[in-house]
Amino acid sequence: MSIVTSLEVLDIRFPTSRDLDGSDAMNADPDYSAAYLIIGTNADDGLEGHGFVFTIGRGNEVEASAIAALRPQILGRDVGELLADMGATWKLLVHDSQLRWLGPEKGVMHMAIGAVINALWDLKAKLAGLPLWEMLAGLSPEEIVALVDFRYLTDALTPQEALEILRRAEPGRAARRARLLREGYDGYTTTPGWLGYSDEKLARLAREAVTDGFKQIKLKVGNSLSDDIRRVQVARAAVGPDISIAIDANQRWEVKEAIEWVRHLAPYDIAWIEEPTSPDDILGHAAIAKGVAPIPVATGEHVHNRVMFKQLLQAKSLEILQIDATRVGGVNENIAILLLAAKFGVRVCPHAGGVGLCEAVQHLSMFDYIAVSADKDGRTIEFVDHLHEHFISPVDVRGGCYWPPSEPGAGTEMHRQSLTTYSFPNGPAWTGAVCSDVAGPRDQLQYDNAPDERNRSHGTAVAAESVPMV
Amino acid sequence: MSIVTSLEVLDIRFPTSRDLDGSDAMNADPDYSAAYLIIGTNADDGLEGHGFVFTIGRGNEVEASAIAALRPQILGRDVGELLADMGATWKLLVHDSQLRWLGPEKGVMHMAIGAVINALWDLKAKLAGLPLWEMLAGLSPEEIVALVDFRYLTDALTPQEALEILRRAEPGRAARRARLLREGYDGYTTTPGWLGYSDEKLARLAREAVTDGFKQIKLKVGNSLSDDIRRVQVARAAVGPDISIAIDANQRWEVKEAIEWVRHLAPYDIAWIEEPTSPDDILGHAAIAKGVAPIPVATGEHVHNRVMFKQLLQAKSLEILQIDATRVGGVNENIAILLLAAKFGVRVCPHAGGVGLCEAVQHLSMFDYIAVSADKDGRTIEFVDHLHEHFISPVDVRGGCYWPPSEPGAGTEMHRQSLTTYSFPNGPAWTGAVCSDVAGPRDQLQYDNAPDERNRSHGTAVAAESVPMV
Repeated sequence: MSIVTSLEVLDIRFPTSRDLDGSDAMNADPDYSAAYLIIGTNADDGLEGHGFVFTIGRGNEVEASAIAALRPQILGRDVGELLADMGATWKLLVHDSQLRWLGPEKGVMHMAIGAVINALWDLKAKLAGLPLWEMLAGLSPEEIVALVDFRYLTDALTPQEALEILRRAEPGRAARRARLLREGYDGYTTTPGWLGYSDEKLARLAREAVTDGFKQIKLKVGNSLSDDIRRVQVARAAVGPDISIAIDANQRWEVKEAIEWVRHLAPYDIAWIEEPTSPDDILGHAAIAKGVAPIPVATGEHVHNRVMFKQLLQAKSLEILQIDATRVGGVNENIAILLLAAKFGVRVCPHAGGVGLCEAVQHLSMFDYIAVSADKDGRTIEFVDHLHEHFISPVDVRGGCYWPPSEPGAGTEMHRQSLTTYSFPNGPAWTGAVCSDVAGPRDQLQYDNAPDERNRSHGTAVAAESVPMV
Repeated sequence: MSIVTSLEVLDIRFPTSRDLDGSDAMNADPDYSAAYLIIGTNADDGLEGHGFVFTIGRGNEVEASAIAALRPQILGRDVGELLADMGATWKLLVHDSQLRWLGPEKGVMHMAIGAVINALWDLKAKLAGLPLWEMLAGLSPEEIVALVDFRYLTDALTPQEALEILRRAEPGRAARRARLLREGYDGYTTTPGWLGYSDEKLARLAREAVTDGFKQIKLKVGNSLSDDIRRVQVARAAVGPDISIAIDANQRWEVKEAIEWVRHLAPYDIAWIEEPTSPDDILGHAAIAKGVAPIPVATGEHVHNRVMFKQLLQAKSLEILQIDATRVGGVNENIAILLLAAKFGVRVCPHAGGVGLCEAVQHLSMFDYIAVSADKDGRTIEFVDHLHEHFISPVDVRGGCYWPPSEPGAGTEMHRQSLTTYSFPNGPAWTGAVCSDVAGPRDQLQYDNAPDERNRSHGTAVAAESVPMV
């Protein structure tokens, strides 16, 4: 028997705002950050559980403080017990009657719980010697259902219905695993479409994305309708008719404004409109979905828990559900959300980018394909080629696809050296002791590289222009 | 010109769990707490702005950390400018592009912003020499509208509609102010109805509440249907047919379960069913409201912002809207919510209790009556006689009514001595240096006192039994 002996909390920030050359309608100057934790044990196996919450700078210390507040719940506990019943462990943290008041199940405290849960999954997968997606995809339907807290879900999804969804998918698991390893999982890129880019740069990056094998790009919209119309035209001309173009308003609009605005962009074959308004506005999204049909509405990166996703599905507020690895209560709650999406028959296209979100969320999509929805057609994971070099197991994105990771763990572990360098406010990247590799003067673009070179570049510096908000 | 020179943050906790003899279906052992702040200036007038977030113990340090994270936004700013345009000040804090990621507009970070906003209102009211309700009720309709952020509201309430509501109420302000001073504002008590009480104690406390002048009591429900039926019968027998009995499930149920359960209690003339399920579940509340009609559904104490309230109203999910002084973004957002309630014609019956919630929220109801809804019939503010003695201006509740405070400020200032004694973890109440006045062995009940005596008791100790969750 081993016990949890430490829960280290780190405030990690990348000074990405220093050289920001693109942004979106709501996020001016993000410093991509991670409220990061490391769970240590006395097992003498050298294994740790790593997890984090992605934030964009100020307030990362608040998130770190929330993670630290969970120490008493975890320290001294039997590791085997915690990991053996992750459904019970989730409830232990989420239903703490005092901490619950700070949400409930939303915002800083809920994300902190998600990070601890994800760190435990990372440890569990390492102990099993498997990448998380593979470990999850090896669980029985009953074991998967036991991970999910059905509280507040049963009017839309019962444990029995979840079991039926999982059992239906069970016979095809091996074939889909083989297909996943053969084909990869589609990704799309947000790199060409930042608001601040010139039309020439947009066109060039869009063409490069196509050359790199991406079948979809995404443009930020919402500052100026005439600019948006022109930019969508430029992008469409650059990529041709066979590449999807999604647009993302980052919560910029009122309900009626969103409908009006998107109608003007409809002629250019829009793959989806993302975050048209407040992520809390279930009924607003439903009105928008109706008003802009047949263009699908996408949302989720700021949707704070399974109860909100349940309603977005019940109200037909979205057709594209965008899970995020660090917004909700970790792997367990994302499995609940994947099951809801399967029940309602909507596509899941995860939000990623930021710090480590690509590394983490790919496991969930791959698990979903093998064991839940049994489908990956029309599903695609966001990709931004930024900050991957800080991770022990950076994503492998080639030819427009995510390739299944093979290293044990949840993909959430950063290099110790990166954790030291970018520690805020006393790490050398912040004291000026070293020149930050994301804030340097280089002008090389990731999409100037061929795909093979891009993949190799994960161990090195990333160009400043890949910094903006996703 | 004076500037903000300090923003002191305190972690204040009352060890109320030590002698807890009542509780509800979701909250086992609360330590009533306040993440507290004091805004100081260089004005040499001795005035400070006090504000807080109510929490129930663990995690109060996280809330305090979130308040501290707002220091850079406030320190060094011109006090006159901050206070002159509180609408702009609200947006300054809420729309900070980096901090916004931690919500957006929900949970720990949003409540912290609310506390700072409330502290600024406290300072503004003190500078004006007026209690907050009176200062707000003296603003023109245009000035009130300027306090509100209509982002994400305009599909339900436009600035013009808000202006019309306020203008309609303007001619009667003086008469209603006079009536308020003459009649007070109805309160109701939750004291008799904690789950752990024996039937005898419930009956005795219910009768005492009636003697004290309360026209409504509230019972906690949700643990056992047979117990709930029996307890509602006991309470009804004790208070007779003319006193309202509300019930409160503290988010305990699934949607269908709530409908089923409440139907069994319907024969006993229930004033409202409060928090039947997750506060996030707008559609669930709508289904419950339909399923339990004509019993009204009440919710709000955990509803995190105006966007959620907008939808609860649009979907007809509630008939009783329960604002809370420290859950949303402070006075400004609560004014938005009061305007929404007026637009949709629902009654506002604030949540209170905890630490200082009664002191704070009464100002909003009184302002609402004079300047917004122009109505106080069928509206009632929750009252629990607990921890008031720690406040400079404790509530004046007599004869079942809240009496309008006359002291300048927002009611949110605690005695310095209390702040010292209950500072966590090093204050004498926690180190054992003094015997906590809420954790003592006394068995005297607040409702053993006559109303006049009860009011005088605010400066002294409060019996342990008034501790439980509201």
